[in-house]
Amino acid sequence: MTAESPVTNLAILSLVKEGGELDLSLARLPMPEPKAHEVLVEVKATPINPSDLFLLLGGADIASGRTEARDGLPAVVAPIPQAAMRAMAARVGTAMPVGNEGAGTVVKAGAAPEAQALLGKTVAMLGGAMYAQYRCLPAKMCMEMPDGTDPRDAASCFVNPLTALGFVETARREGHRAIVHTAAASNLGQMLNRICMADGIPLVSIVRKPAQADLLKAQGARHVVDSSAPDYMDALTAAIAETGATLAFDAIGGGKQGGQILGAMEAVAARQMKEYNRYGSDTFKQLYVYGALDLSPTVLNRTFGFKWSMSGWLLPHFLADAGPETAERMRARVVAELTTTFASRYSHEISLEQALDPQTIAAYEAKRTGEKYLIRP
Amino acid sequence: MTAESPVTNLAILSLVKEGGELDLSLARLPMPEPKAHEVLVEVKATPINPSDLFLLLGGADIASGRTEARDGLPAVVAPIPQAAMRAMAARVGTAMPVGNEGAGTVVKAGAAPEAQALLGKTVAMLGGAMYAQYRCLPAKMCMEMPDGTDPRDAASCFVNPLTALGFVETARREGHRAIVHTAAASNLGQMLNRICMADGIPLVSIVRKPAQADLLKAQGARHVVDSSAPDYMDALTAAIAETGATLAFDAIGGGKQGGQILGAMEAVAARQMKEYNRYGSDTFKQLYVYGALDLSPTVLNRTFGFKWSMSGWLLPHFLADAGPETAERMRARVVAELTTTFASRYSHEISLEQALDPQTIAAYEAKRTGEKYLIRP
Repeated sequence: MTAESPVTNLAILSLVKEGGELDLSLARLPMPEPKAHEVLVEVKATPINPSDLFLLLGGADIASGRTEARDGLPAVVAPIPQAAMRAMAARVGTAMPVGNEGAGTVVKAGAAPEAQALLGKTVAMLGGAMYAQYRCLPAKMCMEMPDGTDPRDAASCFVNPLTALGFVETARREGHRAIVHTAAASNLGQMLNRICMADGIPLVSIVRKPAQADLLKAQGARHVVDSSAPDYMDALTAAIAETGATLAFDAIGGGKQGGQILGAMEAVAARQMKEYNRYGSDTFKQLYVYGALDLSPTVLNRTFGFKWSMSGWLLPHFLADAGPETAERMRARVVAELTTTFASRYSHEISLEQALDPQTIAAYEAKRTGEKYLIRP
Repeated sequence: MTAESPVTNLAILSLVKEGGELDLSLARLPMPEPKAHEVLVEVKATPINPSDLFLLLGGADIASGRTEARDGLPAVVAPIPQAAMRAMAARVGTAMPVGNEGAGTVVKAGAAPEAQALLGKTVAMLGGAMYAQYRCLPAKMCMEMPDGTDPRDAASCFVNPLTALGFVETARREGHRAIVHTAAASNLGQMLNRICMADGIPLVSIVRKPAQADLLKAQGARHVVDSSAPDYMDALTAAIAETGATLAFDAIGGGKQGGQILGAMEAVAARQMKEYNRYGSDTFKQLYVYGALDLSPTVLNRTFGFKWSMSGWLLPHFLADAGPETAERMRARVVAELTTTFASRYSHEISLEQALDPQTIAAYEAKRTGEKYLIRP
């Protein structure tokens, strides 16, 4: 930082108030000072992932809210429905910074060699509080990018790339030969498709619209199933039979789809049974729920025997289980294939101020496939 | 068998017909002749377990059926609702023998030494087709009982005892220190309570009525929760906090209870978290569904973060995973503690003919806790 460097750091803060109100504001925070092992990064690009929205918006009904200006900075105040408030108890009264990942330039570094080594470098970061002009964090939490990397390309280095790679690692570790994926036309889904094509792992992509199916097919996807089609269950069952998939990753969570996938896997397994067994097949079927695009209850019609499992899947839990060597190998692959396999496409670039505009919030909260927002602080 | 031995074997057969009809009958089958490694057992006692009902009744609406007499033997013909027929495709047109387990006396044996060794012995059996006067099966599928054992005591040697022991083995193998169990006043639940008391494993027993709670408490159960009580969720959460349970076995399957148990475990884990995490705790919570007392869909309000798993649990799958040594150790314990830990109580003893009486069927199909039927062929 030069002498003219700002002394305050503009950052988005999300506060849930006791009475059931969200207070979302852009605030002037003191500029952080890196400790010996830390670096100060000027955030250049940070994506709005579905996984950020819950913390950012706190389940509030933004459309029923109002905007305010505080010291010339924007704020949104909106009611939180009572049902959503139940999940908020632990965060009431604490203004929380937001933003899982981002990329930027190291502008100041602590005295430790590993911090000094990053000075001037472009780095990708994971760890929250990225919706800000500056982020101070331990040097070891930064992933150094090759010189000349556009921070825009490095903004989504962690959540989607490591999640998609984590799916493939999970399939290998648990002995499955093919994967079913829902909401599969997402940035993450397209990435997963590229990884599976490169690694020769059959992938069944479930999408919700014909246009999404076309998009994936144009990218080389072989098994694409549209859940809005009248023959959805037949097509899904056929794709599972063809690929031998016994593992699924579900971004949706709510509703019947997860159970339908397990049911289709069981139907395929049952075809190979020589005699009737009222307890179903002995083919193990695993469904991982890694998202909550649908917050309604999961409804399982248990038509898939007794050899199945439905589990939560979360990147930090996976990385902790897989161990540091696997995590390092995955990160190295992300850096090496940053603009190819792991390229993210953004439909909109917005400022921190714009991220608090109710109409813009409504647009990115809709999580429409093909729309992806990047904040450029 | 003496010279007057019967040449036919009366057996219950369950046939699902194409048009959606159950034909349940007592039939005269040829008397089986044991091969070298087989024995012929005169069945003396065989229980009606919940796990037998699905095969026996095929989801039919018995109350809307009619009875018939065929060659002096009873039969019941009843309609099967269309929804239930979907699960029957694989068995349509094949008359199926019924009865998972039973006990009896070996009346004839093949030439092989292990078969001859059982002649005249009381044995417990697993393997289906027990609702019959005689059962022919490989000697190695029989569990020899000590001399003087009442076949009534040995009738339920496998399904409930090995399942209850399997729960405890599963808890140990997967590193859980306490167990939650639903429908816990059942014969199985009482057995599990005795095992857990003997082995020092904390058990949270969920029942549906105050009288069931009293029954378990009178047997020494310490943590009994009544789901019909207004403070159910608070009491469940308190019991989980006290025991540290992160593992549950659910006999019910349908409805919201499974998810509520995971939610209560998460609530306990969340209390120990130092800061808010929108993804929930990192305490792993496992719910195993081993029965289907409620056939309606499972409904999960996912209020338990991302570190959880809900899975099917079935005794044969568990035994296959655990390996022969564990299975042998479990069986030896069952024999040693047959009239204590693994004692079953029967409220009704009926004949094969009575098992086909519609009113009797209605009674045992109700699966009322405290009522347990034993067939004495």
